[in-house]
This record gives sequence, structure tokens and C-alpha cells, in this order.
Amino acid sequence: MNVSTHLLRCTGCGQRINPGEAQSNFRCRVCSDLFEVEYPWSEGAEGPAQEPYSASRPVPRNRPNPGALKYLWQERRTSTLSIDQSGVWRFRDLLPIVTEDRVVTLREGNTPLYEMPRAAESLGMNWLLAKHQGMNPTGSFKDTGMTAALSVAVAAGFEWVACASTGNTSAAMAAYAARAGLRSLVLIPEGKIAWGKLSQAMDYGSTTVQLRTDFDGCVRVLAKIVERAPVYLLNSVNPYRLEGQKTPAFEMLEQLEWQVPHHLIVPGGNLANVSALGKGFAEMKQLGFIRRVPKMSVIQAEGANPLYRWLQNGGHGQLEPVVADTRASAIRIGNPASWKKAARVIASTGGWCEQVNEREIALSKAEIGAEGIGCEPASAVTLAGLKKLAADGRVGREETAVLLLTGHTLKDFEYTIQYHRGELLTEAEMAGASKAELARHAALRCEPLVLDAKADAVLSVLDKMTARPVQTA
Amino acid sequence: MNVSTHLLRCTGCGQRINPGEAQSNFRCRVCSDLFEVEYPWSEGAEGPAQEPYSASRPVPRNRPNPGALKYLWQERRTSTLSIDQSGVWRFRDLLPIVTEDRVVTLREGNTPLYEMPRAAESLGMNWLLAKHQGMNPTGSFKDTGMTAALSVAVAAGFEWVACASTGNTSAAMAAYAARAGLRSLVLIPEGKIAWGKLSQAMDYGSTTVQLRTDFDGCVRVLAKIVERAPVYLLNSVNPYRLEGQKTPAFEMLEQLEWQVPHHLIVPGGNLANVSALGKGFAEMKQLGFIRRVPKMSVIQAEGANPLYRWLQNGGHGQLEPVVADTRASAIRIGNPASWKKAARVIASTGGWCEQVNEREIALSKAEIGAEGIGCEPASAVTLAGLKKLAADGRVGREETAVLLLTGHTLKDFEYTIQYHRGELLTEAEMAGASKAELARHAALRCEPLVLDAKADAVLSVLDKMTARPVQTA
Repeated sequence: MNVSTHLLRCTGCGQRINPGEAQSNFRCRVCSDLFEVEYPWSEGAEGPAQEPYSASRPVPRNRPNPGALKYLWQERRTSTLSIDQSGVWRFRDLLPIVTEDRVVTLREGNTPLYEMPRAAESLGMNWLLAKHQGMNPTGSFKDTGMTAALSVAVAAGFEWVACASTGNTSAAMAAYAARAGLRSLVLIPEGKIAWGKLSQAMDYGSTTVQLRTDFDGCVRVLAKIVERAPVYLLNSVNPYRLEGQKTPAFEMLEQLEWQVPHHLIVPGGNLANVSALGKGFAEMKQLGFIRRVPKMSVIQAEGANPLYRWLQNGGHGQLEPVVADTRASAIRIGNPASWKKAARVIASTGGWCEQVNEREIALSKAEIGAEGIGCEPASAVTLAGLKKLAADGRVGREETAVLLLTGHTLKDFEYTIQYHRGELLTEAEMAGASKAELARHAALRCEPLVLDAKADAVLSVLDKMTARPVQTA
Repeated sequence: MNVSTHLLRCTGCGQRINPGEAQSNFRCRVCSDLFEVEYPWSEGAEGPAQEPYSASRPVPRNRPNPGALKYLWQERRTSTLSIDQSGVWRFRDLLPIVTEDRVVTLREGNTPLYEMPRAAESLGMNWLLAKHQGMNPTGSFKDTGMTAALSVAVAAGFEWVACASTGNTSAAMAAYAARAGLRSLVLIPEGKIAWGKLSQAMDYGSTTVQLRTDFDGCVRVLAKIVERAPVYLLNSVNPYRLEGQKTPAFEMLEQLEWQVPHHLIVPGGNLANVSALGKGFAEMKQLGFIRRVPKMSVIQAEGANPLYRWLQNGGHGQLEPVVADTRASAIRIGNPASWKKAARVIASTGGWCEQVNEREIALSKAEIGAEGIGCEPASAVTLAGLKKLAADGRVGREETAVLLLTGHTLKDFEYTIQYHRGELLTEAEMAGASKAELARHAALRCEPLVLDAKADAVLSVLDKMTARPVQTA
């Protein structure tokens, strides 16, 4: 196992351990909090960096050099090696060291940073961008984390990997496990199978087991399994997933030619993603790549808003879980594992936490779609949240904002169909809409028309939709 | 309209016209056959290249220089311009000239070329690769064509674009039209809506119209519409779509460091894709980038095999349409528009046309999935066909083959679920399977198990699946 040039540092009590000493559940033995990966060059790592990381491998004392790395990362784009073609491993100088030819990659990352001219205009902003992590191989941002964690699992000699999930996590885990030639186990509560979401795990050959219990019961059984057997845990507590998930911060800066955006807006579910991106930007600043970090804001759905509530109540004590209820299934999480890390990122960067309702999410998804960009509903909370941040001046008109889109539109096609057929939102949900909002919904909704098979009939429809009549041209 | 440094050449009678003279249905006025784009440097273009292409713009006489272009195309990979980040427009030196800042792009192309080690091993081949065009923004290879054709539509000043399709074409057209700020029209037969497939067109804001007719009726109405109104036709007869779709040939060669694979295996539906790739490889050879082209083979589903039948019957006369019936919906086409072009590509490169049945398609899809690569069923015909080509020695063990995967697994998740639950294939379809084939199906199928919420119960399942018992470790 070549991942010896880093330590795991408990984000609760600060205790540092060698990677091999981590418990199978990736919780601190002292305080049960989560770990993060610490490098010899990490902020505050001076102390431990002077201790031997491993007997056989001396610690590289050299601090990473931003100028050299910027050049190297750019040059790797022209390489035909799979490790260079990966948008995660291209940045491997700031990742746990893995034997290069054993990296498990599906050429993740390298995702587009789209301009959103129409959304920017309607917000009165000069420049709005969307970093689309749903363009990863399995259709979600989870791939960037799984390539890292699976590579560590392979290096450590595991034959089985496992998670409790029915959604994007299981799809990503299954794909990377298959790529690595490992077996993967997905635990799900009996009878609550969303077959669509599970189809990818099945496609990639995962062993899926329905347990006669609820989701928390699955998590408990999984904890026992990884304790008793050599099965590698790939739930979001795994700190190596976050190392992969921090790399879009690097890539985004590269795409912006190292100009730091003022705001990054991230959907908030389990809150590991904003934690990872926060770590990525913090590392860029600490190493001297950039002089400031973006303000990082988290947007939650009203029905799954435990972090928003905690912050509204002053941000003291423990987070109170909620019973999560939102159609944005990827952030339907009532008890987020990474809430403390996320709260720290928001506070340290000067961002905010907002909540948005189902009507606002649906409208924003349609607006993103109208830019030619498809995303899953959870991604659309970013635009919905930005509207609120812009409305009360927290995001300025002259500032640059990047929306972090997390999943592909194909991940939840039923939501799209229901919205456009007018079957998604209830009357109660629509009741609070303003006139302007209702008009926006009406302009964006496009239920199929039924017409006679005559060109005239179709052309008269087009005429009505177009300022300049189509037929007269 | 800056697309004046090319002509359109009829692939039937050879007649050449200026782009602006094309009929709205992109059929030759003389013989009704399809056009292809011809450049001053195209093979056989010496004659017309000496005529003025346009009064205001002299024809560049310089033949493209392979060495310079290889370097330029590689360097563009390091650029942050969207036109350079596109895996289609990075090759714009061999595409119709469009004003660079008006290119309509979603950063298509740059798709992975995956090694398929397990499939190669089971075929006894040294090296098998898969070029995954399903990793494009809307999840299918159609994006590479739509970025080209939509850019031409914008340059020509169209406000509406249209196609008759319920599948990948409509999704790609809708996304690129939205990106360009154009309106798009999708015609579909009434009552035969596959909502899942249409969800993307709706998401991207397309106007979808169900006509009270069948699919051919939709095509006829569309032909009248584009004749009478300034609506740009984006069905596969549009020659600019093929210009975009030829670029994966360039990209593949680049990824292979200009080593030409021996075989390229392409799914055969409407047959525009193999035609485009054939043009791409032919241009590479003609310009001196490579010395030979791969043998290009087309694989059709047994239930949608008009080209296979035509070739089996000697390849004379007109192609006889079939009533298409296959679960691989993306190639469920009985009367392919580009059959002549495709037949020429197969003949000129020395490839073959094969057919595969539903059982073979399903097994191959599961095998591709087991490599961690998800694809839609139509893509899997490539592996199924390769097995036949390898079995009778047409593809040798020492030769390199590339499978062209056309769509993402999320495009048809229901197929995946039905297969793994044992609900896809009928008894009749399974009846012809060999013992070995049945064993492969059994090994790959993974229907969810139902267990009590106990670690023991799960671990004993893992033990049975693993050579080295999990619990004893």
C-alpha cells in the first residue's frame, strides 16, 4: 500500500493516525468524528510532517510549487496515458500517492464549465457559470470520489467494497469496482427500491441486497460487516472519496485561468461535496495558487434542511436530523454525515446556507434546461438558491458565481416528464407563486401537442410561438 | 454565412452544388440521393476546387499539413476556449468554416477510449478497445453531429430547427438548439410516445408535437414543413451532422498515437454513423495522416437487418426495407437513409456486416457492464458481432479492434432492469443458447436478493460468491 505520504487527521479532536490504523468505519476512535487526509504540506501539518510517515518511505519535504504544477497539469492534458486523461489523477501531485499503473479510472473529471447567459441576464448578473459534474462517466459527481477511494481499496488489497445507497453513490461505486475487478455490495431497504436508480449498479454487476429494515438499519448492518470482514466501506465517511471530490475546485480554477470566482453555490444533501470542494480551494490558497477562495454557499431543499435549520438557530450544539422529504432525491437526506465540515467551509469562506421549495427547484431546473444543459433536480437548487442570494444583495451583479451541478438529467427523467406534463407540483405548492413566477412556468413548460398530420397545423403552432411569422418567410 | 469553402457533392450522381443551393430536404435535385461535404482538398475535388467557391472568399489552395495539424490539435487541448475544449471543433481545420465565436458547443467529444481487458481475454484477443460516444453531453454520439449542424443553422440565420424522432436525435437537437437560442420542433407519431426518451427534448425546451399518423407520416409532414417555411431539417440526411460525426475517427487515432486499429465495429441502424466515420478515416488517409484505414464492420440486430439482408443477397439493386423489431431501440430502423454510403464504407475498407440476436445483445451488454462501462443496448451489438467475426477468423487474435459504443446506459435503464430480473428474454429466445452461454448469463445476472437485516446473512452470501472466504480473513 503506497498511500503512506499522508496521515488521517480527525476533524473533531485533531488526532492523527497512519492510514493503516483507520478503523473500518472511518470514525475516530477517540471522538467518533470524521477524518480528513493530511499531507506533509497541509496547513497545520508542520508538526507531524517531521515525524516519520513510514519507515521505508521518507516524507518529501518539498512544498508543491504552484507555477510548476500549473504547467505540469496543463501539459498532462496532451498526454494519452489514462492517468493523465483523468480529470482527477491529472492533479495526483495533491492526492494520496497510489501506484500509477493501478489507478482505477474511467476518465472522470474534465467536466465542462458552461456559461449561463440567459439565467445571468434574468438575474441581472454579468457572468454566471455552471460546473457540470453530472457529465462524469456514471452521470454524477460521485465518480471523482470513487476513482480515488477505489484506487486506495485496490492498493490495500481488498476484494469487496460496499455502501448503503440506492442512488448515485451505488452507481459510481459499482462502476469503479467493476473497472478494478473488485466485487461490490449495495445494501438497500426492502421494498423501497427505485429500480431506475438501481439499474446502473446492476448493469455494472454489483451484488444488491434488500434488507428487511429501513435505511438506518442498512447502515448499521454495513458497519458490522466492514468490522467483521475485509469489506471496504465506501459511504461518504470514507475520507479518500473527498480527496477525489476536491479536484473539481482545481479544474474550475484552471478553466478560469486561475481567476477565482466570487461565489460557488453547491447543493446540500449529505454535505460531503461542499466539504471536499472547500478543502480543495483551501489547499489552493494555502499553497499559493490563489490569494482568496470563493464564498461557498450551500442550498438545501425546504423538506431536507437540517443544516439550514441549525444555522438559523444560531449554529450551536448538535445538528438535529429531520425526516427528509423532497423530490430532489439526491439531496433527500435528513441526517447529513458531513455537516460539521460543511458548516466550517461556509463560515470560513463567508458563504451562506439557503433553502428553496419544490416550486422554485422545478422552475430552476427548467431554466437550466432551457440553456441546453440537463441536470437532475438536486442540481437545480443552486440556481434557485442563487436567486435568493442575489435578490437580497448577498451576491452582487458584478460578481462571478459558479453553480455546481451534481447529476445528469437522465438520472431522473420521470421528474422532467411530470413537470412538463403539469403533474409534478401540487396545487398547494403552486399557490404561493407570484404572477411573474407563474408566467415563467407557463413559458418553460412544454407538454406535447396533438395535431392532425398536416404541415399547416404544425406551422400555425410555430407561427404563434415566434415573433417573426414562420410561414411568411 | 461563412460556410463557403466547401461544396455539397451528391453521393449518387456526383453533382456538386454550393451550400446555399441545397434544397431544404438535403436531397439531390437530379437523383434524390444524399449529399456529402466536399472540401477543396477532398479526394477527387481538384476540378471544382479550381472554380470560384464564392466571389468574396478565395479558396485556400494549401493542402492541410498532417504534421502541423497533429501538433495544433494537441495544443488546443490545453486551451480554455470553448471551441478548443470541444472534441469536434478542435478539428475545425477539416470542418466547414463557421465564425468561431458563433459555434454552438456543449463541449462534446473528447470521449474515452476504454480498454476492455476481460472481453478481450474471453475472445482470446490481445487488445480490445471501446470508444464510448455515449459519454457525450446528452448521452449519445448524436451530439458530435448536432454541434456541427446547429452551428451551420445559426450561421444561415434559421430560427427554427426540426426533426422526426423520439430518441437520441431529438435529445441532441433540442439541447444544441437551446444552447444556440433557437427553437426546436420534434415530430412524433401519436400514442407511441416513449416518455423516457422524450424527457430530454422536453427538458431542453423543445416543442414536441404528436401527429395523428405513423413515423413515415411524420417524416412526410416534416418534409412539407421545411419546404414551405424557414425551418432547418436536422434528420440524418443533413450532411453537416456527418461532418461532426466523422471527428471521433480523428480523436480515436490521436488517442492511439496515430496507430491505426485493424478493425472498427459500429452498430448499424440508420447507418449515418458508419458513413461519417468512414469519411473521417478516408480523409485521414487521403491527407497523409495514416497509411491505411481500419476494416469497418457494421452489426445489425436480427430484427432490423436490411443492410445485412441486402449484402447476403449479393448487394445488388435497391435495399428492401424491413419491419424493424428489436429491443435495441436506437437501431430499430427498417429503412435506413444512409445505406448506400454505409455499403460503400464496408466494401472500400474490407469490413463485414453481421447480425446478432436479442440474446446475444443482452449478454454482450452485461459483459460490457461488467467492465464498468455502461451502454445502451444498441451499443452492445458491437461486442456480440465481434464474437462472430473473431469466431470465424475474420478478426484475428493479434489484431486490434475498437468497438464504437453509441449511447449511455441511462438512455434505457428499463432494459437493464428487465435483463437482470430475468424478465427481458423470452423462453423462445433463450432456447437456442449453448450451455456455456447459459452459464455466462447466470454469472452476469444480478437480481437483488432479499435478506434479514443481519450481517451474518449478508456475509454468507459474499462467502459463496468469493473463492477466498470473506469471513475468515
